Amino acid sequence: MNVLILHAHPEPQSFTSALRDQAVGTLQAQGHEVHVSDLYAMHWNPVASAEDFCDRDNPDYLVYALEQRLGVKTKSLAPDIQQELDKLLWADLLILNFPIYWFSMPAILKGWIDRVLVSGVCYGGKRFYDQGGLAGKKALVTVTLGGREHMFGEDAIHGPLEDMLRPLLRGTLAYVGLDVLPPFVAWHVPYISADARGQFLLDYQQRLERLDQDAPLVFPRLAQFDEALYPIR
Amino acid sequence: MNVLILHAHPEPQSFTSALRDQAVGTLQAQGHEVHVSDLYAMHWNPVASAEDFCDRDNPDYLVYALEQRLGVKTKSLAPDIQQELDKLLWADLLILNFPIYWFSMPAILKGWIDRVLVSGVCYGGKRFYDQGGLAGKKALVTVTLGGREHMFGEDAIHGPLEDMLRPLLRGTLAYVGLDVLPPFVAWHVPYISADARGQFLLDYQQRLERLDQDAPLVFPRLAQFDEALYPIR
Repeated sequence: MNVLILHAHPEPQSFTSALRDQAVGTLQAQGHEVHVSDLYAMHWNPVASAEDFCDRDNPDYLVYALEQRLGVKTKSLAPDIQQELDKLLWADLLILNFPIYWFSMPAILKGWIDRVLVSGVCYGGKRFYDQGGLAGKKALVTVTLGGREHMFGEDAIHGPLEDMLRPLLRGTLAYVGLDVLPPFVAWHVPYISADARGQFLLDYQQRLERLDQDAPLVFPRLAQFDEALYPIR
Repeated sequence: MNVLILHAHPEPQSFTSALRDQAVGTLQAQGHEVHVSDLYAMHWNPVASAEDFCDRDNPDYLVYALEQRLGVKTKSLAPDIQQELDKLLWADLLILNFPIYWFSMPAILKGWIDRVLVSGVCYGGKRFYDQGGLAGKKALVTVTLGGREHMFGEDAIHGPLEDMLRPLLRGTLAYVGLDVLPPFVAWHVPYISADARGQFLLDYQQRLERLDQDAPLVFPRLAQFDEALYPIR
């Protein structure tokens, strides 16, 4: 497999970085090819703007998705976007590796999503969910967070973590057609011992070694809806 | 009331900007004081990093929330953060005005959340949800999106919009203690007529004129959980 790891943490020595290194080592040892996009190290620009297009369909009024479609056709996307898009299309597995900020991604990673998942390639028209442009590839979300495991779940104070991550798991990764594997979660990271952290790294290694056995999460399929996207009963 | 509008759209002539202008006009006509933070126009930096702190508790290893707490105590937060935090503390009502990107905020706005909702002021320790640091203030999310209304809801293809917005409505705004009003949603905006857009502006005006009659959404209260944050049965 070709694997692209999106890594987004402002501290190079963080435990999130150790998870990244564990993924690189484990996956390479299995014979996979791995590329890491370290967004902080790359000084990735997360702000979607008119400057993302070297050529404009309408220079007077920006409709971002329309300009993306033109940019794909005429190869005029900004070079930093095109480079990341090429890596994404090369990859069979996309790993998003980040600390939870406000129950979602750090802005630098959200801005990778905003700018790189371009209309006309990753989705567009009726190409979304199981018909999405990236169908056939897999995605794994690997997160660290401060909360404890019992704070998440049906009756727990924050509800299920998958519900908090819904715009990412369903609204983004599943939307573009990826098979979304259950997230790998390291709980309570700032407060735990070196041993407990080591155990998470071991668990992660074992998870990655058996990733082909993971069943993806279940999301809507377009065949369940009619032409106007009303549910078929 | 003092009102802070966070506006995040890359096109100054967008319908999202018209909603911002409608809010400014309507609220000022009612005698409220309104400030707009136009994140694109401000060239807001959305990337949380070590450079957000003029003084460091630990210069060798960044724990972002810990540095926020020190930054609050010693008034050493980066000036752009402190300015926005001052506006937030001044406001009685916070309006987030943005186009839906990937079922959530554009990265530039997510980075306002990441950097400005600082630990030690907005939350910290057992100060969250109804005990959050911003309790007593209100929040309104005003969004534009491409999808049609029937694509959202219990059996709809994307599920309820409030579920997609959960990390923002519950995990962020309610978490810091804000009373979160039901979102104002302008559907299918890129595809509708000028008349239909005008109707949304009128609906928004009427909504804003009666905002004090809106019941906030219901979220967890800390009294429903024990000291270790297990639910009390």
